[in-house]
Amino acid sequence: MKKHELLIVGGSAGGIQAAICAQKHHGLKDIVVIRPEVKAMVPCGIPYIYGTLGGVEKNILPDKLLGEAKLKVGEVISIDRKGKTVTLKNGEVLGYNKLILATGSNPLQPPIPGTDKKNVWFVKKYPDYLQELALAMDQARHIVVIGGGFIGVEFADECRKRGHEVTIVELLEHCLQLVCTEELCIRAEEALRERGVKVITSNAVKSIGGSDKVEFVKLESGEDIKCDMVIIGIGVLPNTKLAEEAGLKVGPTRGIEVDEFQRTTDGNIFAVGDCAEKYSFFNGQPVPVRLASVATREGKIAAANLYLPQWRNIGTVGIFSTVIGQTAIAMAGLTDAQAHKLGHDVVIGEAEAASKHPGTMPGAEPMRVRLIFDRRSGKMLGGCACCAMTAGEVGNVMAVAIVNGMTMEQVAMFPMGTHPWLTASPLSYQITDAASDALHKTKKVAV
Amino acid sequence: MKKHELLIVGGSAGGIQAAICAQKHHGLKDIVVIRPEVKAMVPCGIPYIYGTLGGVEKNILPDKLLGEAKLKVGEVISIDRKGKTVTLKNGEVLGYNKLILATGSNPLQPPIPGTDKKNVWFVKKYPDYLQELALAMDQARHIVVIGGGFIGVEFADECRKRGHEVTIVELLEHCLQLVCTEELCIRAEEALRERGVKVITSNAVKSIGGSDKVEFVKLESGEDIKCDMVIIGIGVLPNTKLAEEAGLKVGPTRGIEVDEFQRTTDGNIFAVGDCAEKYSFFNGQPVPVRLASVATREGKIAAANLYLPQWRNIGTVGIFSTVIGQTAIAMAGLTDAQAHKLGHDVVIGEAEAASKHPGTMPGAEPMRVRLIFDRRSGKMLGGCACCAMTAGEVGNVMAVAIVNGMTMEQVAMFPMGTHPWLTASPLSYQITDAASDALHKTKKVAV
Repeated sequence: MKKHELLIVGGSAGGIQAAICAQKHHGLKDIVVIRPEVKAMVPCGIPYIYGTLGGVEKNILPDKLLGEAKLKVGEVISIDRKGKTVTLKNGEVLGYNKLILATGSNPLQPPIPGTDKKNVWFVKKYPDYLQELALAMDQARHIVVIGGGFIGVEFADECRKRGHEVTIVELLEHCLQLVCTEELCIRAEEALRERGVKVITSNAVKSIGGSDKVEFVKLESGEDIKCDMVIIGIGVLPNTKLAEEAGLKVGPTRGIEVDEFQRTTDGNIFAVGDCAEKYSFFNGQPVPVRLASVATREGKIAAANLYLPQWRNIGTVGIFSTVIGQTAIAMAGLTDAQAHKLGHDVVIGEAEAASKHPGTMPGAEPMRVRLIFDRRSGKMLGGCACCAMTAGEVGNVMAVAIVNGMTMEQVAMFPMGTHPWLTASPLSYQITDAASDALHKTKKVAV
Repeated sequence: MKKHELLIVGGSAGGIQAAICAQKHHGLKDIVVIRPEVKAMVPCGIPYIYGTLGGVEKNILPDKLLGEAKLKVGEVISIDRKGKTVTLKNGEVLGYNKLILATGSNPLQPPIPGTDKKNVWFVKKYPDYLQELALAMDQARHIVVIGGGFIGVEFADECRKRGHEVTIVELLEHCLQLVCTEELCIRAEEALRERGVKVITSNAVKSIGGSDKVEFVKLESGEDIKCDMVIIGIGVLPNTKLAEEAGLKVGPTRGIEVDEFQRTTDGNIFAVGDCAEKYSFFNGQPVPVRLASVATREGKIAAANLYLPQWRNIGTVGIFSTVIGQTAIAMAGLTDAQAHKLGHDVVIGEAEAASKHPGTMPGAEPMRVRLIFDRRSGKMLGGCACCAMTAGEVGNVMAVAIVNGMTMEQVAMFPMGTHPWLTASPLSYQITDAASDALHKTKKVAV
């Protein structure tokens, strides 16, 4: 049995980032990344396989990122924490000095009858499965997407690009409701409808019907929707079997419990990515925010902390963005509902201006920003932006402001840069203007 | 003589923003903005009049921004500080309680013979003058642009779009050298050359030749460049005549001296924008950074401080961006040269990745980020980004990081958001990766 300095179980975003950073930070040479797949998918790229990219092979995480870390294809079935070894399904045993668990998550299975019918698909991350889905989709006409979160919305949009009839069914009042402020949810639904997607909200799928293969879904409202394919994207469940069987603790959102240095309850074992519990930046409480960008950040932190707790994970801030047709939306930090739940008395600041300036520049389009501040401390809690293609980086401007605890005064006065092709006008830059708007609402500077 | 609560002299970006914010902050109704032009230009849009926008009328600052503030067209020729009045060229006298000077700047005139010849143009902000330039340009074939700063580079690029032969002549070793790190300067020059602009650097124009109308420029190197139009954009000189004649102090970069609340040496008179002295965020010393985005920020600050010093101008951070062809570049904070001059021992972090992910997404292009940190404090001092169209907002992410004094550790771990259409991959997001690179270079986390 060979003992390795670092074993990483899982080779998607979090695991690969941990392997990269363990090499950069510590110069480690003896790293083995173990995963069941020969090739791993770019997780956020999965919906785009079906329209924009045009194939599974266009969405592969390049293994060259691993550097000198070795990739072993196999499934780890147990951890012996005392002996510091892991056992693979084929019987192979590998020793470790440090172990990082990046075992990801599996799609949530809704408790509805009929999910076992032919042409009912989940958003799994296995290339072979996703390839089969691509082939099946070639034969499909009407697709029902169950779940109006980011994955569901992106799948719906991509399926439309291929010309399918698409219906999206969301249990809650709005698509994206768990992560976005209402205004953004509504804008996203409008964009889906403009693209020709049928959007059904406040409704649940009661059953999936058909003889052998799916033929319709039955809604709680009684309606039947004829279809020949169903894609289910209603969330994920952390993959913690291995950790739990090894006696590691699991937290309230079903992730492996970790401290602020990504250490599990065993100091030699770290957990990162979808399999690990997340803790809110705002109050330290568990939050179910499972994103590749969160996973890679945790991978970096775990790698840095392998030998000494050096980098603190200050907590998870949800930074989401997506594009529906040409409508880009981004969300950073807390939604109104989340802020209220945490007890904040909030002030909202809003601004809209052309995404380029003057507004006569080619391609200029209205871009809206809406920011949420705590009234008393003045600190920025969250924000959203739509609809220009710079929204993703505008979300990142907001993210930096939030983690620095910037107040509405500070945001209103930050020294932004502007350019006719790249941003709004300096007279109406949306982030600073939205902060000013909030400030004026508080009448703080009134004489 | 009517006494007004607030007079603003100058109605470009800084003056208009001051008028907007004085209304928002203080609910002021009695504001008069006095400027010589009936219509004001969007300052940053001026080069784009000639190619992209296609006309002066497409680049007008909308006066509706003024809200209830009144616009008076006229030229203020003197200020009586004791009597608190201003006198216009037509003899009219207006009283003020508070006065904001936003008198802007004038193009620098180089001390070379021949600038008085026909078809030698400066980058003035008057619509009529710019319209005449447009008409003259219709007749021109070969244009020489003197000055390789942002304005010169943008004019050169736009003139190419119209099909002119264009030569740019820059005195320093590189275009954009005063504000950009060398790498970015070189990239910009490459982009200009790819567009067909002839770029001549480390060379000066000795004289402008021709009988009545310009026929050639003679370089220090001895070469003559045949041309039938010259555009000079070598910088600006603050317009401080009015302030100086009223006894207000002027600072080392020739701007009106202001304190951290934008107050001049007279507590009832504020100065904002190009006419006002700027002070570096990094050491408080005067810096000649004259941009519309700086002007509008100062306009806000002055307006907030009219009655009580409430908002401190934390200092000027240069945030520049531009686009040459399809190459966008952005720069935030200090260049290497500026950082060295301030005594910093710097660490550079670099990263490059596709602007979208996976790199197979349509329109993905390599995007580079280069960050500068102080080695000892770890604080971020500056950064640059090229070449995707999100560079402008990436520059703003950097700006927020700089003003918050974020260290390389904090930048490496900030909770960025990513999306296939909008940003680099979470495995290789350039800002966090560049910070990690700097950190690894310092070997801070080495075991």
